[in-house]
Amino acid sequence: MVYLTRRERFNAAHKLYNPNWSALQNDAVFGKCANTNWHGHNYELFVTVKGEPDPDTGFIINVKELSDIIKEHVIEHLDHRNLNLDVPFLQGMFTSTENVAKAIWQQLVPHLKGCTLHCIKLVETENIYVEYFGD
Amino acid sequence: MVYLTRRERFNAAHKLYNPNWSALQNDAVFGKCANTNWHGHNYELFVTVKGEPDPDTGFIINVKELSDIIKEHVIEHLDHRNLNLDVPFLQGMFTSTENVAKAIWQQLVPHLKGCTLHCIKLVETENIYVEYFGD
Amino acid sequence: MVYLTRRERFNAAHKLYNPNWSALQNDAVFGKCANTNWHGHNYELFVTVKGEPDPDTGFIINVKELSDIIKEHVIEHLDHRNLNLDVPFLQGMFTSTENVAKAIWQQLVPHLKGCTLHCIKLVETENIYVEYFGD
Amino acid sequence: MVYLTRRERFNAAHKLYNPNWSALQNDAVFGKCANTNWHGHNYELFVTVKGEPDPDTGFIINVKELSDIIKEHVIEHLDHRNLNLDVPFLQGMFTSTENVAKAIWQQLVPHLKGCTLHCIKLVETENIYVEYFGD
Amino acid sequence: MVYLTRRERFNAAHKLYNPNWSALQNDAVFGKCANTNWHGHNYELFVTVKGEPDPDTGFIINVKELSDIIKEHVIEHLDHRNLNLDVPFLQGMFTSTENVAKAIWQQLVPHLKGCTLHCIKLVETENIYVEYFGD
Amino acid sequence: MVYLTRRERFNAAHKLYNPNWSALQNDAVFGKCANTNWHGHNYELFVTVKGEPDPDTGFIINVKELSDIIKEHVIEHLDHRNLNLDVPFLQGMFTSTENVAKAIWQQLVPHLKGCTLHCIKLVETENIYVEYFGD
Repeated sequence: MVYLTRRERFNAAHKLYNPNWSALQNDAVFGKCANTNWHGHNYELFVTVKGEPDPDTGFIINVKELSDIIKEHVIEHLDHRNLNLDVPFLQGMFTSTENVAKAIWQQLVPHLKGCTLHCIKLVETENIYVEYFGD
Repeated sequence: MVYLTRRERFNAAHKLYNPNWSALQNDAVFGKCANTNWHGHNYELFVTVKGEPDPDTGFIINVKELSDIIKEHVIEHLDHRNLNLDVPFLQGMFTSTENVAKAIWQQLVPHLKGCTLHCIKLVETENIYVEYFGD
Repeated sequence: MVYLTRRERFNAAHKLYNPNWSALQNDAVFGKCANTNWHGHNYELFVTVKGEPDPDTGFIINVKELSDIIKEHVIEHLDHRNLNLDVPFLQGMFTSTENVAKAIWQQLVPHLKGCTLHCIKLVETENIYVEYFGD
Repeated sequence: MVYLTRRERFNAAHKLYNPNWSALQNDAVFGKCANTNWHGHNYELFVTVKGEPDPDTGFIINVKELSDIIKEHVIEHLDHRNLNLDVPFLQGMFTSTENVAKAIWQQLVPHLKGCTLHCIKLVETENIYVEYFGD
Repeated sequence: MVYLTRRERFNAAHKLYNPNWSALQNDAVFGKCANTNWHGHNYELFVTVKGEPDPDTGFIINVKELSDIIKEHVIEHLDHRNLNLDVPFLQGMFTSTENVAKAIWQQLVPHLKGCTLHCIKLVETENIYVEYFGD
Repeated sequence: MVYLTRRERFNAAHKLYNPNWSALQNDAVFGKCANTNWHGHNYELFVTVKGEPDPDTGFIINVKELSDIIKEHVIEHLDHRNLNLDVPFLQGMFTSTENVAKAIWQQLVPHLKGCTLHCIKLVETENIYVEYFGD
């Protein structure tokens, strides 16, 4: 079993707020992350798959193919978007890094053949990242 | 003469569009950067000052003081904000990295005493940055 | 279960030496790390916690709160300090990266509520780091 | 149990191609990685070992000794070499990152005493890396 | 005047040797960089242009257009190539980082309209880079 | 004219304090940097030289030779040392990054033949660096 990781990037706007809460309560919990007019990040996404190298190629999966799958099912939907407004697969969610990582897992898992999705790592800033392993 | 650089960071939303143009023209020039609902970045700001080290401290300027000046006059206004909507000193500008770097120069130059502002370097992504030297 | 990591940094002096050994033996084992007058590092600390996202916030733990806990119980004690002389919770230990990582675990574990400490990663240089998972 | 990681680097040429396939088929699968006259990379190698810190040193293994073992058994053979032509322990293999990581594991495992090899992480570009845990 | 920098990357094989010299002399001067069967690098290329921001866009040059020019005239010719064998515009040159940077300048300068090429920075490893300003 | 930069690193202890000042005054100006028992950093040193590439090698200077000069005259004296106590060429100076950069310039300038020292860049933390160009 070998683990292969591909990094992709997307730049997006979002905000953190709970629509069931008052502005005051949102401010107390989310602070400046609740700014009405949004803020944004350069997100880094690391997708790790695992499997046995193919004897004809030495590959778990062709990393070009892995990149294309991530771009089609994730990056195209998130890059230069507003995570709260523009992304069907995030509708109705708080766009915390935790939740976005889990949603990316759900987007990718049906499209990976011949290898197994192992980890979604989503880096929000140089000081904060989240990992999700599917359970 | 020695040059001292301090890095600060801010996370902000913005979009690129020209209100005098049609949506089509904006899309042709700015592409996905014109997304109606904004996108965003983790900006890195490098402020370089120059001067002679003080014989009593070895400092051009106390880097803690430099950091405080940058935070008060720049970061507080840009961090977790929408560059197009929330920032008085960017009102009416296209928020291209070029223009934001020039505006940051204007914000800082009146507040630096005992050393000279040399360069504003503004990093938008790992692949794009801008430098402005004041003329 | 989602894993959330917060990075903090501290700059500290230390040396590696065994007081039960001769200078010669210390030099043979620790080399220049045993320099009498100390040396130092920019340490990077990555604290990983795990838990279920809260349905009201999307957070495992508010990353601001996690940062405050790390600063209060770890960074305040280590930053701009001498690890061998200035830190009560490291007294009597060799300040190897291994031991410092374990001691940081002990400092943090009583203060984390609502999520579980998963990993302490301590980076000493760009070429050396240590991870501790609590057992 | 503590985990210690040491980074080393090597710069090497290689290409990806299957000698049992036509040029066309190689091109279809490996693309520009099959370029006849080779291409190359700055590889980063992260070797992780695990063990209990020695009570006399605080070390799992002296990181200087770990570095020397990696240099003698891996880096000397790979650095400024052609992975397809110059490396006895890679003879007859496709030099995919997956296979090179596994071969590095085999090179190191007999030479580590007093600690256990845990992971070989091999970074090919800033966007691609592989991990191997020995089974 | 504002300076804009775009980073692109290419992975290439090369070697350093002087065909007028004996193998011994090549080895004495170039060391392992003269390895017969090549070695390689992940090169990072930073292209800096300067100009006045356009009042209709805020851009010196559209960074997408700058990226396309660099890709067409430089990256397509160098990426996944052998710098000594595969690149018409490097024929007959020693492929030192210095010479490659100068050759990249020559490739780009005729294709930049509306702004001025300022600097080619070519990073060979994390420890070595070269800058060329055109004279 | 081409510019070549070589990075080297050193890990050192130091403190900032003015012996002519009271403890109170030192604390007011230098804050935690004045900690009696020292603190420390992983310093990164970037040495830039300029010159014309040699027609027989393509080199301004052999980067291996440049590295050896920096190691002999700078790194050997600073690495795993106390900058205030252990370094003859820093005696009697405040060990501010500004002053250390200037002192490194003085150390190197007599030893560079066939090329010209252009810049000493000294990085103290990821947020602070200093550049000195010799006047």
